[in-house]
Amino acid sequence: MQLENTIQEFKAYLERIIMYSQAMSILSFDSETIAPEGGLENRAKRAGFFELEIFNMAVSSTMKGFLEALEPHQNELDVHTKAMYRLAKKDYDEATKLPPELVKAYAELTEESASVWRKARTENNYKAFSPYLKRIIDMKKQVLTLRASEIPEGGQPYDIFLDDFEEGMTIKKYDDFFEKLKATVIPLIKKVAASKKKIDTSFANTKVDIATQRKISELLANHVGYDLNRGYIGEAMHPFCNGSHKTDIRITTHYYENDFMSSLYSVMHEIGHAIYEQNVGDDIADTTLGDGASSGIHESQSRLYENVIGRNLAFWEYIIDELKSLLPKEFASVTPQMFYEAANESKPSLIRVEADELTYSLHVIIRYEIEKMIFSGEVDVDDLPAIWNQKYQEYLGITPPDDADGVMQDVHWSEGLFGYFPTYALGSAYAAQMLHYMNKEFNIDELILKGEFSKITAWLTDKIHKHGSIYTPNQLIEQAFGEQLNGEYYAKYLEDKFSKLYQL
Amino acid sequence: MQLENTIQEFKAYLERIIMYSQAMSILSFDSETIAPEGGLENRAKRAGFFELEIFNMAVSSTMKGFLEALEPHQNELDVHTKAMYRLAKKDYDEATKLPPELVKAYAELTEESASVWRKARTENNYKAFSPYLKRIIDMKKQVLTLRASEIPEGGQPYDIFLDDFEEGMTIKKYDDFFEKLKATVIPLIKKVAASKKKIDTSFANTKVDIATQRKISELLANHVGYDLNRGYIGEAMHPFCNGSHKTDIRITTHYYENDFMSSLYSVMHEIGHAIYEQNVGDDIADTTLGDGASSGIHESQSRLYENVIGRNLAFWEYIIDELKSLLPKEFASVTPQMFYEAANESKPSLIRVEADELTYSLHVIIRYEIEKMIFSGEVDVDDLPAIWNQKYQEYLGITPPDDADGVMQDVHWSEGLFGYFPTYALGSAYAAQMLHYMNKEFNIDELILKGEFSKITAWLTDKIHKHGSIYTPNQLIEQAFGEQLNGEYYAKYLEDKFSKLYQL
Repeated sequence: MQLENTIQEFKAYLERIIMYSQAMSILSFDSETIAPEGGLENRAKRAGFFELEIFNMAVSSTMKGFLEALEPHQNELDVHTKAMYRLAKKDYDEATKLPPELVKAYAELTEESASVWRKARTENNYKAFSPYLKRIIDMKKQVLTLRASEIPEGGQPYDIFLDDFEEGMTIKKYDDFFEKLKATVIPLIKKVAASKKKIDTSFANTKVDIATQRKISELLANHVGYDLNRGYIGEAMHPFCNGSHKTDIRITTHYYENDFMSSLYSVMHEIGHAIYEQNVGDDIADTTLGDGASSGIHESQSRLYENVIGRNLAFWEYIIDELKSLLPKEFASVTPQMFYEAANESKPSLIRVEADELTYSLHVIIRYEIEKMIFSGEVDVDDLPAIWNQKYQEYLGITPPDDADGVMQDVHWSEGLFGYFPTYALGSAYAAQMLHYMNKEFNIDELILKGEFSKITAWLTDKIHKHGSIYTPNQLIEQAFGEQLNGEYYAKYLEDKFSKLYQL
Repeated sequence: MQLENTIQEFKAYLERIIMYSQAMSILSFDSETIAPEGGLENRAKRAGFFELEIFNMAVSSTMKGFLEALEPHQNELDVHTKAMYRLAKKDYDEATKLPPELVKAYAELTEESASVWRKARTENNYKAFSPYLKRIIDMKKQVLTLRASEIPEGGQPYDIFLDDFEEGMTIKKYDDFFEKLKATVIPLIKKVAASKKKIDTSFANTKVDIATQRKISELLANHVGYDLNRGYIGEAMHPFCNGSHKTDIRITTHYYENDFMSSLYSVMHEIGHAIYEQNVGDDIADTTLGDGASSGIHESQSRLYENVIGRNLAFWEYIIDELKSLLPKEFASVTPQMFYEAANESKPSLIRVEADELTYSLHVIIRYEIEKMIFSGEVDVDDLPAIWNQKYQEYLGITPPDDADGVMQDVHWSEGLFGYFPTYALGSAYAAQMLHYMNKEFNIDELILKGEFSKITAWLTDKIHKHGSIYTPNQLIEQAFGEQLNGEYYAKYLEDKFSKLYQL
C-alpha cells in the first residue's frame, strides 16, 4: 500500500517534469524557426531559467526520496515503472555531479551559440563562432571531470558522452565498428569511382519553386504516414525533428530552389524520426517513456525512411505520377530509374547531410575522430578548420572551400552535442538489420510499390516505436530480433545495393 | 537594510513569475498559429498546468510574506517597486479568492474552447461552440461570486470585470460614456447615410496575392516603426499582438486575396500594440511593469496607428508610390484621395474588425450591452444568436446571415474575455485625446506626409510607452495631459473627419 502510494507520487512528480520538458521543446522549436533575432538574449536567459527548473526537479530532495524509496523494490515494479525509475535514476546520478550554476550557464551558452552559429555560418566567419565553441568545449570538459567516475574501465572521458547518446557504446566498440565498416566501404567507394556506369543527375537541379516543394513535403508526409494532424513542417536552416508529445511531433526542412531532392530527402529523414515518436504507445505517451530508446535507434528510423524506403527504386515508381502532376513540364521525360539512380549517385562530397548513402559514414567517422581528439586534448579549437579540411582530403579526397561548408556545417557542436554523430552510423546499421528481418516477413519493395507504407509502419511500431524508451537499445534490438547490434547487415546492404547500381 | 533585502528578494521572485508568463505567451502564440490540431488536448492540459504554476506563485505564502513585509513601507518604496507591489497585491487579492482547481479548470477550458471556437466558426456551427461558452460563463459567474466583495457601491458583479481591464471603470461610467457617444454618432451616421457623396471602393477588392500582401505587411512595419528584428508577423484566424518581452513582440494577421485592405488595417492596428510594447523603458523591460498600462491604453495605441495614422490622407500620399511599385498594374489609376476615401467609407456592416471608424463603436456597444445581460442573468447562452441579431438590426439596421459572422465572429468570449470589448471604444477616445495634445506640439499630418513616424513614436513613447504599467490609466493620462479621460475629443474627431469626408 505504501509502495503503491510512493509509485503514484513518483509518477505525478515525473509528470511535472514532462510538462516543463514539453514546454521547453515547443519554445526551442519556436526559437529555431520563427523567433526574432533581437530576442535572442532574453530567450537564452529564459531557456537557462527553465533548464535549471527541470534540473532542480531531477535532482531535488523529493526525487532523491523517491529513488531511495523505490530502490529496494525494483524487482516488484511493473515494466513501465521500472523503466521510469531507471531513467530518473540515471538522470539523477548524472546531474547530481553537476553544480546548478554550470547547468544554467551551459543552457544559456548553447541557446545563444546556436544562434551565433547560424549567423557565423551564413557569413562564413569561423572566428565569430570559435569563441563560443571554445566555451562550450571547456564546459563539456568540466562536465567530464565532474563525471569522471563514469569512465569505463580502460576507457577515456569521451566514453561518457558516447554512452549518453547510446547506452553501452564505448570508444572501443565504435573503433571496432568503424574499422570493420571502413574495410567494406573504402574498397567499395574505390570500385564505384572506377566504374564505367554514368549517372545522369542534371534534372535534379531543375528549378522547383519553394511553394511546390512545400507541396511535395506534404505529399510525402501524407503518403508515407507522417500524420500532419499531429505534426507540422516548418522551415529552419538545419532540418530537425522536434517532439513534445505524440500528438505534436514537428519537423523542419530547408528548401533550395535548384535542389529539390535535398529537401525531399531531408523531409523523408525527419519523417522517420517523426513517425517513431507519433507511434509510441498510448499507455506511455504521457510518461517519461514517451520518446525514443536512444539516438541510434531514433536514427535507425530516419535512415530507414530516408534510405531504405526513399532511396529505393520502388519508391520512385510509386511516387512518380504524383510528382509529375505537380511538375509536368519539368519532369516529363524523367523515369523512376533515373530518379533512383540520381538519388543514389555516390561520390565524395563536402556536406554530411547531402552525402550519399555510401560515403555518408566517412563524414561521421571524421567527426568522431575529431571529437576524440578534442576530448583527449590533442587539438585546439583554432586548429579545427585545418584538421577538418585535412581529414576530408585524407578520407574523401576533397577539401572544403570555406568553413561554412567545412567545420561549421553542422549545428550539433554549437548545441554542445558531442558523442552524438557516431549514432548516425549506428542508425544506418540498425536500419539494415531491421530491413533484414522485415524482409523475412514480407517483401518491403513490393509494399512500397503498392504504397502500403502503413504495413511497414505497423511492423516497426510493433518492434520499435510503441516501446518508446522502456528498454535500452540493446534490450530493444535483442527482444525484437534475438540478437544484438550486428554491423554485417549494413555492410552487406551497401555492397549489394551499390554493386548492383554501379554494375560492379 | 532588511527592507532592502526584502525588496531584492521580492523582485527576484517576480522575475520567476515573468519567466513563466513569457513562456506561456510564446506557447500561446504557437498554439494560435502553427500548432497541429491533434495536439489540442495535450496543449490544453499543459496550459492548465502552467497557469496553475503561475497562479500558485502569485498566491504563495512566499508572496504573502513579501506583501505583508512591504505593506507598512509603501511610502518608502521607489516608483517602480511601489508599482510592482501594487500589481502583485492586486493579483494576490484577486487570486486568493479563487480555488486553484477553478483556475486550472478555467485555463484548460479556455485553451480548448478557443480551438473549438475556431472550428465552429469555420463550420458556422454555434451548437458546437455554445456548450463551451456556457461552461465559460458559468465559471465566470462562479468567479464573480467569489469576488463579490469587489463590487463597487451601488454596482453590479459585471463591474468587477470592467475594472479588471480598465482600472476605475464601472457600468455607470461606461453607460455615461456610451450614451454621450451615441448622441454624436447616431445622428452623424444618419447624416452620412443621407449624404450624396459617393465613395468608390471597387478597387479595394482587386485581387492581391497573399505573397504580395505579406510584403505589404513588412513594408508597413518598416515604415511605421515596428521593429521586425524584435518582432514577427504570423498568420492566424483572428489578428492579435503577442508580447513576451520588448525584444520579442509578435503580431498576426489574416490575409484575404480579394480584400487586401482588411489585412493592411489589421496589421496597422496590431503594429500600434506592438510599438507600445517594443518601447517600454529598458529599466522596466525585465520586470512586471514591462507591458501596457491597461487594455484601454493599449487599444489607444492600436487605434492611433490604425485610424489616426493609417486612415489619414497623408498616410496614403506617403505610401502610395511604394504600394504602386508592388502592384503597378492593379493600382495604376488609383489616387491617394481614392484610397483615403475607400478606407473611410462609412456604412453599417456586420464584422466588428472590418467596421469603419464611425460605426465601430456601435459594435462595441452591442457587445457591452449583451455582456451586461449575461452577467445580470437576463439571457441564456442558447438565445445569444437571436439577441445578437436583434441588436444588429436595431443599432445598425442589418441582420447577420449566419452565426459565423454574427455571435461567433470574435475570439474573445471563447477565451473568457468579458469586460474587454468596451476598452476598444475607450481606446479610440484616448487616441483622439492624444491626437489633440500631439497637434499642439507638431502637425501630425505633416509628419506622416514626410514619413517621419519616428517623431510620433518618440512623442508617444515619452508620454505613454516607456512607462509600461507603472501607472494606472488615470494616472498616466493625467500625468501626460493634465486631465482625465475626456470623451469629447473623440466625438469631435469623428464629427470633423466624417463631416469633411461626406461634405456634410
